[in-house]
Amino acid sequence: MTRRKTVMITDSSIRKSVDEYVKRRLKTLPDEIAMFYPQVKKIWKCDNVFDFLYGYCVGNLEVGTMRYLLKFTRASPSTTEETLEIREIIETHRKELQETIRKAIS
Amino acid sequence: MTRRKTVMITDSSIRKSVDEYVKRRLKTLPDEIAMFYPQVKKIWKCDNVFDFLYGYCVGNLEVGTMRYLLKFTRASPSTTEETLEIREIIETHRKELQETIRKAIS
Repeated sequence: MTRRKTVMITDSSIRKSVDEYVKRRLKTLPDEIAMFYPQVKKIWKCDNVFDFLYGYCVGNLEVGTMRYLLKFTRASPSTTEETLEIREIIETHRKELQETIRKAIS
Repeated sequence: MTRRKTVMITDSSIRKSVDEYVKRRLKTLPDEIAMFYPQVKKIWKCDNVFDFLYGYCVGNLEVGTMRYLLKFTRASPSTTEETLEIREIIETHRKELQETIRKAIS
């Protein structure tokens, strides 16, 4: 019953493609962060700028990946399970993402 | 020269529509946050869970709004100026967003 949709992301070629999308985004993120960073504390009034930017990148990557999947497969992930799968793929790049943010704001 | 695209968001009906989209998302965010919250510290290893979630919501709303605009106007915001305009609209809901997150994790 759930197979129809779940196969979409667990399919290895799609998974690989999503993974490559995340890797490409990790290369473009530094410029976006550098532009966004100076306003963060002033505009969003957060305490921990690194964690705000870290969460921002995860949220941005998550929806961006869904948008990418929509273009790639012409199907939009709609189940909670699929959203979690996308999150898991992004999570495998956690350390690289943290490092990317750290460098961009240093 | 820049008018072609910029008009897209400064147009009051589109601006209103974007604003309403953000308001609708603010109503659905609590459930998403409540589901996401328990994993945040364990999986993403952040120090400040509130600021991580806060940034996550801003990032999610930003790309979500762009996706919404694409559907609504059949045009995707592509200039930096437009991305900043979207950010400004989300920013007008800053306090409500902070309150939404605070309630969702309390």
